[in-house]
Amino acid sequence: MAWRTRIKDRIRIKNQLGRETLAEFIGTFILLLIGDGSVAQSVLSRNASGAYLSVNLAWGLAVTMGVFFAGGVSGGHINPAVSLTNCILGRLPWFKLLPYMLAQYLGAFTAAAVVFAVYNDALNNFDGGVRITGYGANATAGIFSTFPKEYVSTWTGLGDQIVGTALLVGCIQAITDKNNFSPSDRGIKAISIGFVVLAIGLSLGHNCGYAINPARDLGPRILTSIAGWGVSPFSFRNYNWFWVPIVGPHIGAILGAWMYLLFSGIHSENDSWQSDSSDLQLDAIKGPSMDEIKRTNEINGNVNLAYYNDRE
Amino acid sequence: MAWRTRIKDRIRIKNQLGRETLAEFIGTFILLLIGDGSVAQSVLSRNASGAYLSVNLAWGLAVTMGVFFAGGVSGGHINPAVSLTNCILGRLPWFKLLPYMLAQYLGAFTAAAVVFAVYNDALNNFDGGVRITGYGANATAGIFSTFPKEYVSTWTGLGDQIVGTALLVGCIQAITDKNNFSPSDRGIKAISIGFVVLAIGLSLGHNCGYAINPARDLGPRILTSIAGWGVSPFSFRNYNWFWVPIVGPHIGAILGAWMYLLFSGIHSENDSWQSDSSDLQLDAIKGPSMDEIKRTNEINGNVNLAYYNDRE
Amino acid sequence: MAWRTRIKDRIRIKNQLGRETLAEFIGTFILLLIGDGSVAQSVLSRNASGAYLSVNLAWGLAVTMGVFFAGGVSGGHINPAVSLTNCILGRLPWFKLLPYMLAQYLGAFTAAAVVFAVYNDALNNFDGGVRITGYGANATAGIFSTFPKEYVSTWTGLGDQIVGTALLVGCIQAITDKNNFSPSDRGIKAISIGFVVLAIGLSLGHNCGYAINPARDLGPRILTSIAGWGVSPFSFRNYNWFWVPIVGPHIGAILGAWMYLLFSGIHSENDSWQSDSSDLQLDAIKGPSMDEIKRTNEINGNVNLAYYNDRE
Amino acid sequence: MAWRTRIKDRIRIKNQLGRETLAEFIGTFILLLIGDGSVAQSVLSRNASGAYLSVNLAWGLAVTMGVFFAGGVSGGHINPAVSLTNCILGRLPWFKLLPYMLAQYLGAFTAAAVVFAVYNDALNNFDGGVRITGYGANATAGIFSTFPKEYVSTWTGLGDQIVGTALLVGCIQAITDKNNFSPSDRGIKAISIGFVVLAIGLSLGHNCGYAINPARDLGPRILTSIAGWGVSPFSFRNYNWFWVPIVGPHIGAILGAWMYLLFSGIHSENDSWQSDSSDLQLDAIKGPSMDEIKRTNEINGNVNLAYYNDRE
Repeated sequence: MAWRTRIKDRIRIKNQLGRETLAEFIGTFILLLIGDGSVAQSVLSRNASGAYLSVNLAWGLAVTMGVFFAGGVSGGHINPAVSLTNCILGRLPWFKLLPYMLAQYLGAFTAAAVVFAVYNDALNNFDGGVRITGYGANATAGIFSTFPKEYVSTWTGLGDQIVGTALLVGCIQAITDKNNFSPSDRGIKAISIGFVVLAIGLSLGHNCGYAINPARDLGPRILTSIAGWGVSPFSFRNYNWFWVPIVGPHIGAILGAWMYLLFSGIHSENDSWQSDSSDLQLDAIKGPSMDEIKRTNEINGNVNLAYYNDRE
Repeated sequence: MAWRTRIKDRIRIKNQLGRETLAEFIGTFILLLIGDGSVAQSVLSRNASGAYLSVNLAWGLAVTMGVFFAGGVSGGHINPAVSLTNCILGRLPWFKLLPYMLAQYLGAFTAAAVVFAVYNDALNNFDGGVRITGYGANATAGIFSTFPKEYVSTWTGLGDQIVGTALLVGCIQAITDKNNFSPSDRGIKAISIGFVVLAIGLSLGHNCGYAINPARDLGPRILTSIAGWGVSPFSFRNYNWFWVPIVGPHIGAILGAWMYLLFSGIHSENDSWQSDSSDLQLDAIKGPSMDEIKRTNEINGNVNLAYYNDRE
Repeated sequence: MAWRTRIKDRIRIKNQLGRETLAEFIGTFILLLIGDGSVAQSVLSRNASGAYLSVNLAWGLAVTMGVFFAGGVSGGHINPAVSLTNCILGRLPWFKLLPYMLAQYLGAFTAAAVVFAVYNDALNNFDGGVRITGYGANATAGIFSTFPKEYVSTWTGLGDQIVGTALLVGCIQAITDKNNFSPSDRGIKAISIGFVVLAIGLSLGHNCGYAINPARDLGPRILTSIAGWGVSPFSFRNYNWFWVPIVGPHIGAILGAWMYLLFSGIHSENDSWQSDSSDLQLDAIKGPSMDEIKRTNEINGNVNLAYYNDRE
Repeated sequence: MAWRTRIKDRIRIKNQLGRETLAEFIGTFILLLIGDGSVAQSVLSRNASGAYLSVNLAWGLAVTMGVFFAGGVSGGHINPAVSLTNCILGRLPWFKLLPYMLAQYLGAFTAAAVVFAVYNDALNNFDGGVRITGYGANATAGIFSTFPKEYVSTWTGLGDQIVGTALLVGCIQAITDKNNFSPSDRGIKAISIGFVVLAIGLSLGHNCGYAINPARDLGPRILTSIAGWGVSPFSFRNYNWFWVPIVGPHIGAILGAWMYLLFSGIHSENDSWQSDSSDLQLDAIKGPSMDEIKRTNEINGNVNLAYYNDRE
């Protein structure tokens, strides 16, 4: 296995922020590949291979998979509004915010490009090559980014995004607060966080498609502009919509974190606010400890002592 | 982080009952926000963005999230019938019953108001501003509280509520009884309790919409009366319906607890009746122990010794 | 709490077989209440409040809940074919087989009666009081027990039941075999077993409704005969169907157990056949140990020492 | 129990590769029995007993059950592309590759034959005995193996298979990497891997039916050729399709493994590439250790000391 080790040693990035940034990129990429893919499948098959419920399920699973990819490295925010909230609460150093956000937007953009490529034949078959934004049977920009129902005002849309993201971040806080009813198995945590997004899609998705994540919305919106829809994904409603799924989630995320803290987390004897109460957050800073890995290996009977000797 | 600690110390409520009451409020709020939101989405989209199954899924997930918010503080009853049953079984002191119930009704009412606000545009678009209770294509009171099918008599409805809530409480007892087949991971407990509500929605929802929770039904019913539906949500069937989803669940919950105890729990050597057999219940009184938190932290390699030194 | 202890001491059944029989009764009751309830809801609403998929989900959840009720006491067979297989494999003493089976059939019958009562108004509204067995838009006997599609021959039906039950029992063996990839959390075990039944419903349900459990089929069939459908549930196809969902599952269960053992379980160094490899089975004989309960209590910080002193 | 031990000792295969090969056979058999069964149910009932979503759910559960059958013995690859990737990454010795692959193809073929037998009556009723490959209301070859939509070009199909399998293998790597956010309960691992396949079916299934597994596609394709569809499942598109779901997944699996390693796994301090980081893989070589089994038994209070004395 010598050549493998040599390759690995060359490629391996030892800089912690570099690793975290890569993880946020790939986590958000996975989120959008599954999520936008499911909307594409549903729209382009005219509901034969998908429906509103299957899209809801896919976005939930997409978040779960994103957390599996990035949770142990960067905390698996895969959402700029979540990263900002973690900075405000003192759980993520401010200097990491911009790299995290860039990685998230880039991951979302790249995934949208892959979805565009995979479903290009189906897209051309669906709309005959005429790319339409907005309403109507052949509109396709909504595969990639979100648009409101005709009767939903911009302010209602903003409120919808705030409530949706508050629910998202409140539930994630609850799920990861060890002083409350948090799962101890990380897999259950990842699945439960996916369930939050499923629940939001089932209950707060009708108004404007529950973006609740600026990267999930803006990244693919830029892709559509480049890939044939032109300026229309931005100019929709006279440039008075595209900012809503960017601004709303940032406000909602902060409100949601405080909703959880004020009504439940902050009063606990053990202080749910301290960053050490949430392993999703702490991992973003420290990564899993040697102790944890050792124990897990022991439990699975796979202890490779030489391997630890290398390090200790 | 000094300013954070200072803010926290000011806000923090040290009174145990106060904390529990807040937790029951926010837990029930989350339950209704997701639950009523999903009915709103399904009704107002005329099933385009939802269906009976998606509503069932949403109520299940709503309960799971409610338990994540409140389970570690108050036990996560989020249902007055469950709180009453716990008092009768000696698992909750009687003096806590009224505060718990008030918090639950208030949480449900507040969530219904948020759903009303978020879906106000869609509601006006749907019914043109004419609020209708009961039957017909444009009836909307059923988004918030439950109404029976036309052919279901009041007594059948009462029986339906009793059977449904008995199933709910029986299953919760089974899931939280450590002497039986209880999950050891709290997250699985929260998810399993959500599955109970999903199962009830799939099997006992057709007659009258499985309220099985007086707060879930009465809180939003009051909201609709205030928000434009007038007296009709109460006067429906000559004031001979609204009490059914209040009275039925209280009877059913007690029956369900005894059903589980008589047929399974009570015979165990280890006494499933004692409150120490169910951590969901005990937590309502004591909260998670220092030991548990220490262990969890150790497992995750996040021990902050100074933090414990503060307390010991 | 003195009066509670006194009541409990009077009621408590100390006989192990008595406890197990009660557990099998209530477990099968829960299985049929949720399962038949979901078929009733789907049929009687003419698919408005349910559909094939929701029925599949409900039967899966029904099994999970049945295991939560009975798993820690009797092993949660809730299926005579499973009990017979356990006897043949030496995991259940033969003298327990008949009591187990009687409890299972009686539990299924009782649950069918409750479903009949709860949905009686809906049933009368659906068929105008004319109870029909077999095919046609108003046939209702299929709510309670299973009937084949018109073009499915009796022998194909028998094969279908054998394959379906083999898959059921094979998967349960795999899930509970500690030498393989078994979940360590009991809750995950209960959920996984529910997933097996969901998978069978999604893949092997079309021919004749995946009874795969003689109690699930015969108990409710007897109820329908008494409750208004007369002899027709038995005389269907000239008395040449009703025995298929009784005989088929017994054959299939034994085949499925051997399929798992021959292809995977038996070759393990640690002997998957020994009854101590499956806690679902062992519990049927011994119940959870004091050690396990102590540990669980410790983990949850709820140790009540006096309680153990009573026993040791 | 003496006769049982004697039978067992005769039957038991002690050769490790023999055991693993059997496990891969039965795991792939279970995968295809549930998976192809669900497509059969959906197609042959003309969506009355199934739909696109139920087929997606079934394939996800099918993978979970396959892992329960084989995960602890061979690692539960049940996919030749996964086995090849494990060889390339140094996690499976090359000499095991061919036996694994043969077992996988044979298991898939056998399961397709069982599905054909179980649904033979329904098949004849559906198409009147005229077996049709490709498009049209009565086409049935797609029950067993996959075919692209008319407007999907061969190259797009190849890209689709590469992306889908890369997503599959990337997610499996993430889920099983102990240095990341991996579940500690094996059951959650098996369920999460099923969720991956569900997610792919919901998002990347529309183009050509997400084979993402050469054995899943070729085995049943051969069966259809023998069972009445003749050469058409291969000659479809002038013999220019059948190779796509064979070649694509092999490329995609390797890409997916590297995608995960380069963006997340390889940079971890603890080296996610080493085979000891993934218990799914290691088990393929070593099987669960005595320690693990002992611990599990202790936790469940079922220690049978004599049993261990036999071995130590």
